[in-house]
Amino acid sequence: MNEFAQLMSPSAFSADTLGDTPDAAVLAAYEHWWTTQGQPVSEAVDRAGTPWLRMFDRAGTRIDEICYPPDYWSMLRKGYREGIIARVFEQQSLLPFYRIGYITAFHDPGLYCPYTVSLGTAVPLEKYGSKALKARFLSHLLRIDGTIWQGATWMTEIKGGSDLGTNVETAAREQGDHWYLNGDKYFASNLGAELAVVAARPEGAPGGVRGLALFLVPRLKENGELNYTIRRIKDKIATRSVPTGEIELRNSEAWLLGSREQGVYLILEVLNISRVANSIASVALAQRAMAEAVFFASRRKAFGKAIIDHPLLLQQFRERQHALRAAMALAGKAAKMLNEVWRQTPPYDDQYHLFRLLAHLAKYWTAEFAAQTCKWAMEVHGGLGTLTEYPVERWFREAMILSIWEGTAHRQILDGLEVMQRKHAHKLLFEQLRPLADRNTLADMEARVAQHLQQPPDEQETNAETLFADLARFTAETLRDCPAQATR
Amino acid sequence: MNEFAQLMSPSAFSADTLGDTPDAAVLAAYEHWWTTQGQPVSEAVDRAGTPWLRMFDRAGTRIDEICYPPDYWSMLRKGYREGIIARVFEQQSLLPFYRIGYITAFHDPGLYCPYTVSLGTAVPLEKYGSKALKARFLSHLLRIDGTIWQGATWMTEIKGGSDLGTNVETAAREQGDHWYLNGDKYFASNLGAELAVVAARPEGAPGGVRGLALFLVPRLKENGELNYTIRRIKDKIATRSVPTGEIELRNSEAWLLGSREQGVYLILEVLNISRVANSIASVALAQRAMAEAVFFASRRKAFGKAIIDHPLLLQQFRERQHALRAAMALAGKAAKMLNEVWRQTPPYDDQYHLFRLLAHLAKYWTAEFAAQTCKWAMEVHGGLGTLTEYPVERWFREAMILSIWEGTAHRQILDGLEVMQRKHAHKLLFEQLRPLADRNTLADMEARVAQHLQQPPDEQETNAETLFADLARFTAETLRDCPAQATR
Amino acid sequence: MNEFAQLMSPSAFSADTLGDTPDAAVLAAYEHWWTTQGQPVSEAVDRAGTPWLRMFDRAGTRIDEICYPPDYWSMLRKGYREGIIARVFEQQSLLPFYRIGYITAFHDPGLYCPYTVSLGTAVPLEKYGSKALKARFLSHLLRIDGTIWQGATWMTEIKGGSDLGTNVETAAREQGDHWYLNGDKYFASNLGAELAVVAARPEGAPGGVRGLALFLVPRLKENGELNYTIRRIKDKIATRSVPTGEIELRNSEAWLLGSREQGVYLILEVLNISRVANSIASVALAQRAMAEAVFFASRRKAFGKAIIDHPLLLQQFRERQHALRAAMALAGKAAKMLNEVWRQTPPYDDQYHLFRLLAHLAKYWTAEFAAQTCKWAMEVHGGLGTLTEYPVERWFREAMILSIWEGTAHRQILDGLEVMQRKHAHKLLFEQLRPLADRNTLADMEARVAQHLQQPPDEQETNAETLFADLARFTAETLRDCPAQATR
Amino acid sequence: MNEFAQLMSPSAFSADTLGDTPDAAVLAAYEHWWTTQGQPVSEAVDRAGTPWLRMFDRAGTRIDEICYPPDYWSMLRKGYREGIIARVFEQQSLLPFYRIGYITAFHDPGLYCPYTVSLGTAVPLEKYGSKALKARFLSHLLRIDGTIWQGATWMTEIKGGSDLGTNVETAAREQGDHWYLNGDKYFASNLGAELAVVAARPEGAPGGVRGLALFLVPRLKENGELNYTIRRIKDKIATRSVPTGEIELRNSEAWLLGSREQGVYLILEVLNISRVANSIASVALAQRAMAEAVFFASRRKAFGKAIIDHPLLLQQFRERQHALRAAMALAGKAAKMLNEVWRQTPPYDDQYHLFRLLAHLAKYWTAEFAAQTCKWAMEVHGGLGTLTEYPVERWFREAMILSIWEGTAHRQILDGLEVMQRKHAHKLLFEQLRPLADRNTLADMEARVAQHLQQPPDEQETNAETLFADLARFTAETLRDCPAQATR
Repeated sequence: MNEFAQLMSPSAFSADTLGDTPDAAVLAAYEHWWTTQGQPVSEAVDRAGTPWLRMFDRAGTRIDEICYPPDYWSMLRKGYREGIIARVFEQQSLLPFYRIGYITAFHDPGLYCPYTVSLGTAVPLEKYGSKALKARFLSHLLRIDGTIWQGATWMTEIKGGSDLGTNVETAAREQGDHWYLNGDKYFASNLGAELAVVAARPEGAPGGVRGLALFLVPRLKENGELNYTIRRIKDKIATRSVPTGEIELRNSEAWLLGSREQGVYLILEVLNISRVANSIASVALAQRAMAEAVFFASRRKAFGKAIIDHPLLLQQFRERQHALRAAMALAGKAAKMLNEVWRQTPPYDDQYHLFRLLAHLAKYWTAEFAAQTCKWAMEVHGGLGTLTEYPVERWFREAMILSIWEGTAHRQILDGLEVMQRKHAHKLLFEQLRPLADRNTLADMEARVAQHLQQPPDEQETNAETLFADLARFTAETLRDCPAQATR
Repeated sequence: MNEFAQLMSPSAFSADTLGDTPDAAVLAAYEHWWTTQGQPVSEAVDRAGTPWLRMFDRAGTRIDEICYPPDYWSMLRKGYREGIIARVFEQQSLLPFYRIGYITAFHDPGLYCPYTVSLGTAVPLEKYGSKALKARFLSHLLRIDGTIWQGATWMTEIKGGSDLGTNVETAAREQGDHWYLNGDKYFASNLGAELAVVAARPEGAPGGVRGLALFLVPRLKENGELNYTIRRIKDKIATRSVPTGEIELRNSEAWLLGSREQGVYLILEVLNISRVANSIASVALAQRAMAEAVFFASRRKAFGKAIIDHPLLLQQFRERQHALRAAMALAGKAAKMLNEVWRQTPPYDDQYHLFRLLAHLAKYWTAEFAAQTCKWAMEVHGGLGTLTEYPVERWFREAMILSIWEGTAHRQILDGLEVMQRKHAHKLLFEQLRPLADRNTLADMEARVAQHLQQPPDEQETNAETLFADLARFTAETLRDCPAQATR
Repeated sequence: MNEFAQLMSPSAFSADTLGDTPDAAVLAAYEHWWTTQGQPVSEAVDRAGTPWLRMFDRAGTRIDEICYPPDYWSMLRKGYREGIIARVFEQQSLLPFYRIGYITAFHDPGLYCPYTVSLGTAVPLEKYGSKALKARFLSHLLRIDGTIWQGATWMTEIKGGSDLGTNVETAAREQGDHWYLNGDKYFASNLGAELAVVAARPEGAPGGVRGLALFLVPRLKENGELNYTIRRIKDKIATRSVPTGEIELRNSEAWLLGSREQGVYLILEVLNISRVANSIASVALAQRAMAEAVFFASRRKAFGKAIIDHPLLLQQFRERQHALRAAMALAGKAAKMLNEVWRQTPPYDDQYHLFRLLAHLAKYWTAEFAAQTCKWAMEVHGGLGTLTEYPVERWFREAMILSIWEGTAHRQILDGLEVMQRKHAHKLLFEQLRPLADRNTLADMEARVAQHLQQPPDEQETNAETLFADLARFTAETLRDCPAQATR
Repeated sequence: MNEFAQLMSPSAFSADTLGDTPDAAVLAAYEHWWTTQGQPVSEAVDRAGTPWLRMFDRAGTRIDEICYPPDYWSMLRKGYREGIIARVFEQQSLLPFYRIGYITAFHDPGLYCPYTVSLGTAVPLEKYGSKALKARFLSHLLRIDGTIWQGATWMTEIKGGSDLGTNVETAAREQGDHWYLNGDKYFASNLGAELAVVAARPEGAPGGVRGLALFLVPRLKENGELNYTIRRIKDKIATRSVPTGEIELRNSEAWLLGSREQGVYLILEVLNISRVANSIASVALAQRAMAEAVFFASRRKAFGKAIIDHPLLLQQFRERQHALRAAMALAGKAAKMLNEVWRQTPPYDDQYHLFRLLAHLAKYWTAEFAAQTCKWAMEVHGGLGTLTEYPVERWFREAMILSIWEGTAHRQILDGLEVMQRKHAHKLLFEQLRPLADRNTLADMEARVAQHLQQPPDEQETNAETLFADLARFTAETLRDCPAQATR
């Protein structure tokens, strides 16, 4: 079944979109490692459930050690060794990060998270850190051996993640050349990281998002003690490959990144990286689920033939495969667009705003596609799909994390609407799509958007979903159908 | 928030559709019990995971005891005590079963399964069992105290559940007044039942579905020994309130129900009951997920107000609530239709075929609605939705079982197509809807179906999904919008 | 097998020693409840493992809810309803507490802990609390319905439990009529209690045990907020029926019990109650393990007969049964002795010191006996004994908790030695035993103790174990063999 | 603390007794691997609990795959790569097996089991297998790479393991050059092995042990299908590094080893190897527990000094360390004695009977010592010892498996008595000990044994325990105190 073969290889499927030079051999080797060694490790980690936290050693000293099986650490380090972070700075390009990440997420979507937050730590440090800070910390994050430091990006607190301006209660107090943070982070991913970027409000800063600043917080104090404690690791429905939990900052040593007025921009720049990573991971997961479904449907028989050969299932498969290519095109476009603007600092240019719209469209569309595809793949398996004994049950659980991480659909729609309202990002989008799209369809889409933006604000919000979904689909399909121009 | 209040009560929400007389007081008391006592039990059972099987007692005797916490058994017996089975035979009506079941499924969709398979055992026994068989077994199933026997319906084997004609390899050998079965059942729900109906092929019977017969198989042999063994309990993504597993039939004593030529009809009659139950449970679960989402969204604040008061979320909620009523109308119609035909024996009349089409539409539509609604409810919770700490994560898992149990969407579409092709069931449907529906919409729908059925068979199958989905939506919305006539 | 029958009933076995009037009917009913209802609950709770902590509700409010199955709470409340605490104050006697506790511990040794720490809270409150404190809190602890408050006794911190004088770092600051505590308690049993007694050091108090005071700390502040938080529930090898964990006291409201100089005496009085309870529980557990072993050994056959009928096993059983009666006599003596002195306040009389020696002997001897008996019972089961499928594996795990709770053997020996050195408690013991014991054996024992106490201090310690063990055995066997006089 | 240092290294501690030439470098490297890599794997495997069985692949084919994390397999293969089996045949000596095994068991007592049963398969195959059988199977067991086959020794059935003569119901039917087995094995260790030796009764053979024969049973049939199925993996209190479960033999292909009359001798020869391995593992575990206790007690402080420096604890430690050397001497003697007789075939000479007595003494004494030492080590840890967070809790659980595996104390005593009664093995023992022991003590021991054997049989059994314990202690201490001569 030739049309199925490409589905089995994430590097083959993503190559046209993300480009694979100059890393083709690296990608192939990494993919081979996953097939032969990584896969059973990932499966065992998922099956073992939430990892365990050893809070104290036998001498009663607080240590907060995250107890994964040793296999886990090998699997985790593998990506760092392949240069998933280091290549970004070597090549001054984000694309190696998304290429390697696509392969990672095909096999373990949760594992892409530590890499993403590590990059989300390294980038602002490199862009906004003082010379002294960079000298002290940056090289640790760029290693490709077992001594690498991991990063983490801790923003959200107990009252919610969307409205950071209201909900961040962590306070920062300046003293000498550094700061002390006090507060609790509620959704802190990659708890074991050696270095984190953390949102906090300097004493005396105004309320709202404008008063937030971004800080660098190492795991250990200068005197070697723990700089913060882990309250607990959370039991999540999936992504057990990344320890997510709660952090208690208590006079934790910290260093300011950038200026204290710029915090919100820096936070959004961190989010840019992870939103695109989420889109990439969503497409990879959708591909995986389809591969799983096809594998099964080619072997399972009913009424005298393989179930994939039943016309309805075959039709569903073909439509979904076509849609998968559109999702890939959209996520790839967002990645390449970010690659053009990620070095910008505020004030940003129009390309940056166009990227933001693309990122919202991509995050929204690919996550939804992944969730629906994993659901479909589970249904293809029938009753077997509901059993923890077989892999598809896991992909279904993983998908919902991707749907919620980095902002739910609701958030993407509203933020996408805002960047159209305030920065007219849709105009730039239409300009980019004009040479590729069918003229009438494009005109129709332009008119709908223009008309929508005329409505009173509440009405714009009320009716935003259909418009946004259609815009995402239109963009994705246009990019898919004219890939050559799309990649420029 | 008045528009939300009804969502919190399954009996209130379903009363218009399913009717609540003469059981209103019973329903209210049962619902109260769930709120005050049943809920934490159900939650604890889900959290404890797959129950455990004690295979041998300390003397080395095989016992196959399913080790739930005692609480579980109290919760399970509660429904029987309320007469979920007994009332069916007292009132000669299935509606009490669906009314009580709706409340059960709102709180624990998996728990509705034991009741459903118990009814699926009692009905064929009562309809097709010999006098002697009924005398011996029936009263055990109709009790309302702790001595009640549970039933179970075991059809599927390792090679798959859709194509029973090919895949049932369990063989039945006649000897004297009873039979001996040998074979393995792979998806056997309610493993602890005292009595099961089991599909098997009598020696010498033809291949295919026409050669299947239905047997009654008690848990214990006449000499008190186990009549079959449980190979294992399966780890499923949800419905931990029902032990599902594998059964090894080894010279297991059995009694034929009906004639050996009629087996396939009896099997389908059992499926009728459970397909409608699945539809009812799907609507109940969707209501529950919405109630959960509204509860949360009314308390969670962002940007200065409860998130439910944000226009986009409010819009999504209202649309979904409207759709919930359509789903209720469709599931209710299937239940009431079954209530008119369930006493029929082959050959069946046209009403029976109309019911079959309705059942396929309802199973398909409501399960999909439940899955999407639970996904939405999870997203409303944001990151909290992914944590096992809060209830919505469970509803999301439960929904996928409903989507797959009793045949996936794929199966419903194809079987629905067949009953239109072979029995013209759509014509009866359109006649029923004619007085209720918009004339033009109806005419359009009729034309599409007629045209579809002209296509070559493979093409009919290839293109069936959109047609079937539209037919389901049309039927559901028509019934919702004209409830008075719909209930006759 | 008549010699085995008594083993099956804890109330029957303990009646001679603990006396069963005036509670005989209550005890019988309670034992019946365990056999018919409590046992499967206790088994399910153990199998479910460490309970789970829900830290926040969906609104983000810290709640620290301990998630046991509802069954657990019924089982727990059963003992309170039988008056395990209330009867102590009604009858002004500890014996009802030990009688009911014996039955509890026979079925679930861990469950006896909540009752013990509840009594350990009520007693100092009643003895040392101000009128206002008692008016406010005491009646809550004495209820026999579902509104009862539980108590807890939290002393130990991370650096260890034996040397409280050095290791208690929790500080108490006085303000107005109450105090504020700050510190972490590391082994805090019965985390869900509504009221705890807590060891802390008032600001300005001297170091060492003399500087400790005992405080009453409710779960909720006067304003209804949590008065402290639970850091986590610990995974223990056994006693899963009591949630043990870590408590974070942060400006927690507290009330001083007694004077600030008396703390160490109050702490030791609390320990008196629980050390005797531990002895009672150890005997009960040993009885249970023997009952389990005999049940099995009477049914299991090898070489043509029940294994209990093999001479070596029968001999082991008989010796152990004889030893069980000695252990019962010793634990019962400690209970009755405490019952005579528990109302004393410092300075204490000689009877109190005699009690202390008896308590150390009983705690040491019975815990060791329980551990060895559970090991033996496991070996009687052979390979089956190592399986979690059968009960004996649990008794083996439970025993080790009893061996360590309330001070290991090491601690009992040294503290027992001290009370002989400083208070000459052995002389009182020998006076009590003189009318009962063999004259020569007694003389020999007296001489050995006298000689031992002549040695230099380090040498006394080095050689203490054999002496202490022999003294315990001598006391236990003497009391067993002359029960009439022993009970006075 | 010099007296503690040797405790930390199993190779150092065992070297004097087991000899370490010519493998010293191998042993050192293997020990280093454990310290740096193996330890966290072993800990993770224990924490993950009982492994999981995947019974069917997605195509519905029975596969019975044991789902350990991949780490587990690396850890397991490590010992094979070091030649734990292969060196036995290369060097024609069992000592490499016991030397490497001692290091294994120090770190993971359960892991020594797969090696032991692999050797227990290879030895009878090599000794009693036909030329054709050996050509076909033996080399697979002797590899030192990842393609090695594991062995397994399955004797016990549901009714019990001591009285195989009565309880083995597995039947063997001869057909052509091989046999077919039918029956269920209840305690089958190392379920994933490629080859097993299995006790069964040929059709027509007499009852009792004399009718048993030993068969070689591969995991796969000649046609590549599974030759038997795994019913389940058992949940045990410890040794989670070896999958133990139940095997269903259904017309399983098998080959007879030796003659059909000799089976019982072959079974006992297999037991010889594993009884000594159990003794070696017991000493290793005791050493480990002591190392753990000393590590802790050197760091934990109370009353102003490390708790190991408190006289009573220090005394306990020294006595126990002295006893550990005696246990090592006894286990080592059994190993060396077996090394002299393991090539014998029936009829055996006196040396063989002396070995049997030594094996019973060693199995009995070392297992008891390990259990008591692990209990003591747990108590040294106080409350921390009861937490699953720290290692000592595991050693305590592991010890009870060693106490029961290969026959409980009861079994060793009775079988030891029998070999004294029937083969006068004690006389040979005394002759060996005469040059080493104190003359009076030896004479006293001889007289006691002689006198004991004069008693009526039932009385001998009734009173056997003290005698046997004293004989074991006397032998162990004599061997310890004269190591030079003891090793000859």
